[in-house]
Amino acid sequence: MADEPIEIEGDVYALRTDLFQAVREAIAAADAAAIDRLMEPLHAADIADFLEQIEPHERRRLLEIWQGGLDGEILSEIEDSVREEILGYLSPQDLTDAVRELESDDVVDLVEYLDDDQQEAVLDVLEPLDRVAVEKALAYPEESAGRLMQVETVRAPEHWTVGETIDHLRAHSDELPEQFYHVILVDPRMKPVGNVTLGRLMSSRREVRLADIREDLFVTIPATQDEEEVAYAFNQYHLITAPVVDEDGRLVGVITIDDAMIVLAEENAEDLLLLAGVGESTVSDRVVATTRRRFPWLAVNLVTAILASLVISLFEEVIAGLVALAVLMPIVASMGGNAGTQSLTVAVRALATKDLTGSNVLRVIRREVLVGMINGVIFAVVMGVIGLAWFGEPLLGVVIAAAMVINLVIAGLAGTVIPVALDRMGVDPALASGAFVTTVTDVVGFFAFLGLAALVLL
Amino acid sequence: MADEPIEIEGDVYALRTDLFQAVREAIAAADAAAIDRLMEPLHAADIADFLEQIEPHERRRLLEIWQGGLDGEILSEIEDSVREEILGYLSPQDLTDAVRELESDDVVDLVEYLDDDQQEAVLDVLEPLDRVAVEKALAYPEESAGRLMQVETVRAPEHWTVGETIDHLRAHSDELPEQFYHVILVDPRMKPVGNVTLGRLMSSRREVRLADIREDLFVTIPATQDEEEVAYAFNQYHLITAPVVDEDGRLVGVITIDDAMIVLAEENAEDLLLLAGVGESTVSDRVVATTRRRFPWLAVNLVTAILASLVISLFEEVIAGLVALAVLMPIVASMGGNAGTQSLTVAVRALATKDLTGSNVLRVIRREVLVGMINGVIFAVVMGVIGLAWFGEPLLGVVIAAAMVINLVIAGLAGTVIPVALDRMGVDPALASGAFVTTVTDVVGFFAFLGLAALVLL
Repeated sequence: MADEPIEIEGDVYALRTDLFQAVREAIAAADAAAIDRLMEPLHAADIADFLEQIEPHERRRLLEIWQGGLDGEILSEIEDSVREEILGYLSPQDLTDAVRELESDDVVDLVEYLDDDQQEAVLDVLEPLDRVAVEKALAYPEESAGRLMQVETVRAPEHWTVGETIDHLRAHSDELPEQFYHVILVDPRMKPVGNVTLGRLMSSRREVRLADIREDLFVTIPATQDEEEVAYAFNQYHLITAPVVDEDGRLVGVITIDDAMIVLAEENAEDLLLLAGVGESTVSDRVVATTRRRFPWLAVNLVTAILASLVISLFEEVIAGLVALAVLMPIVASMGGNAGTQSLTVAVRALATKDLTGSNVLRVIRREVLVGMINGVIFAVVMGVIGLAWFGEPLLGVVIAAAMVINLVIAGLAGTVIPVALDRMGVDPALASGAFVTTVTDVVGFFAFLGLAALVLL
Repeated sequence: MADEPIEIEGDVYALRTDLFQAVREAIAAADAAAIDRLMEPLHAADIADFLEQIEPHERRRLLEIWQGGLDGEILSEIEDSVREEILGYLSPQDLTDAVRELESDDVVDLVEYLDDDQQEAVLDVLEPLDRVAVEKALAYPEESAGRLMQVETVRAPEHWTVGETIDHLRAHSDELPEQFYHVILVDPRMKPVGNVTLGRLMSSRREVRLADIREDLFVTIPATQDEEEVAYAFNQYHLITAPVVDEDGRLVGVITIDDAMIVLAEENAEDLLLLAGVGESTVSDRVVATTRRRFPWLAVNLVTAILASLVISLFEEVIAGLVALAVLMPIVASMGGNAGTQSLTVAVRALATKDLTGSNVLRVIRREVLVGMINGVIFAVVMGVIGLAWFGEPLLGVVIAAAMVINLVIAGLAGTVIPVALDRMGVDPALASGAFVTTVTDVVGFFAFLGLAALVLL
């Protein structure tokens, strides 16, 4: 995009706020040259962020004026919902120009979640060879290593020397991928057998054999493997690149850490959003899409809230006899919900990082129950005193204290057991744990408090 | 550690469950050789995970038997609380052996959160030169680029040719860092002016000037910059390495993407845990530490729950007149709390990724309010019907429906405005938003429902 190198330095990496005003003025004046000038010093990722943050009608107008400015790199940085919108009105010529300059893995990234028509439109503008590579990648399962990998690899037979390898690289320099950091050693059947870093290659004497300077650690990734596992492996083993193999163990591509880092960030965001009862969701989604995505979680919550209300309704007469119970009962439920969410979040996180396994699950459950009990007793004393002071009824203090201990113990138990059980059943614990755990703490909280009150006070 | 390369392949990267039993048997038999044999094929990161997952007394016994087995790499992979425990009983000789083989940035990582005594003990075993490097890094602020960087850099004057550079690297091959992927071009005053990838260097002819093959993108990082910003830059710009500069712009170190990836994962985990009201916390923390960390959040929640109860107590007479209100009121509060958490999580996430800024905040607030209104109306109708059917009182249905709309609109508003306001005030929105938002939705939920009931039903 820019001919001059882009230099980024400074304390904060963020779009300058005056950029928005300047671009708005250029849009109003339909001044393509001014837009060019404003965008030129920016990295494609920042231009993508800019496009996401402006209003949809501004975005459309900007792209109409700034024809051909939207290159493939920007397009591949833009988030899904906005990208889909843009592809809906991009001229065929602009689309062709944008997509042609991309490497095959970026094209895959661009088209994999498009609907069939849009996907076809993009594939149609590719050169036949590129199209084959893209379609091959699309044949791998969604969110698999096969979709994430680059097809272009830099490899050498394991018996080669440093000198032979460097001569070969020099002779084929125009076929090399833009970024590569290792040479993959392969056996005669194209099975990868080791990695040599370029640093090691470059600093070794020409007659040294590649096999003698390979890395101590060598990780291969099956092409069908889930991308979440790939990100885990990169983070766990500090990999920079890893060869991808087909089911016969033959080299089919390579994944680099920057792609794994993007997956890691996405997976973490997904867990965070799922735990809060939000599916895939970003600030640039439109109102209708957002409403539709939030609705199911709220509907589940309504059901669990009604369940809790049914428990309360069992005790209508008790409440009618002592309205103070209605005043205090949400406290017990709320504390249980909070404590349960604490336990469950730690458990979901630990499951994702494989720190919570069969080997320590009993210890973790024991710990959560103990923590619930200790905090339960402390808050029981506090609430017992408050209940007594507030309503002048000693037994009310005892009831709320006892209910608090019970609910915080149950919270610790449910907050760990439920995500672990969901995980074992193959359900993403981030997805469903929250609703289950708060249902348990609401039901137990109301039942323990009102039930004890019925026994003790009436 | 192992002389043979470690090869990792397979569908799931996880510790084998039978390993735990085998190691327990070896511990019982005090068989150091058996432990060696079991650990030898494992990566240091996996051994660290193993040590975290066994019981504390097993850990201690294992390390007593497996003397010298705990190398520096394993130690630097172990999480803080367990590492602190181990350093408390590791023999001075084992500690010396473990630390000596580490590079300076790993030592920094190892000692930065230790108490003074433990830190001193580790620093004492370092060679004087290494100690100076470590102390220099420790002089940078906590969680800054200066703590994250390696001091060893591979650099070349910008006027050098490819041939000169390769000859220089070969001649100094024993001084090169274990992993490096770029040569940093520096001007005569040691200011970095560009990056050349090793791939480009290796595949270019000897007479080509480095300045002519430098990367299009060049990002420098101030040593005092927050590590969260560093991780953002690596993820945003797909960096592999970036030079770190002091306040005069001179090269002082280099950060590689694997370190940035670890920071990114940590920051994401922190946001997730903070949002759930859990500070730093892992499954290997002990009971007392866990109880102490969860307590403050529960205490805050108790205060907000009591606030909500105070609102309810304003309407004691209304509830005494119609106990159905006590049954239904938690539903309104719970739906508001859920919707508010949805909005707030999206906002916190978008603030962290810089997708929610001054340029689109009004649009996002407008959207959240609209989404709250639409979902509010839908659930109002549902709950109105349920309320009517359940208690046979049409006005009760109207009251709960109206309260639902009000609370879901307020939830959308509070869920966005509160995190944005906290962020502007320099408070981490993940830390404090949750308590504020649920306080608002509880108070508004109870007040709207019971207040409307008082107006309409009595």
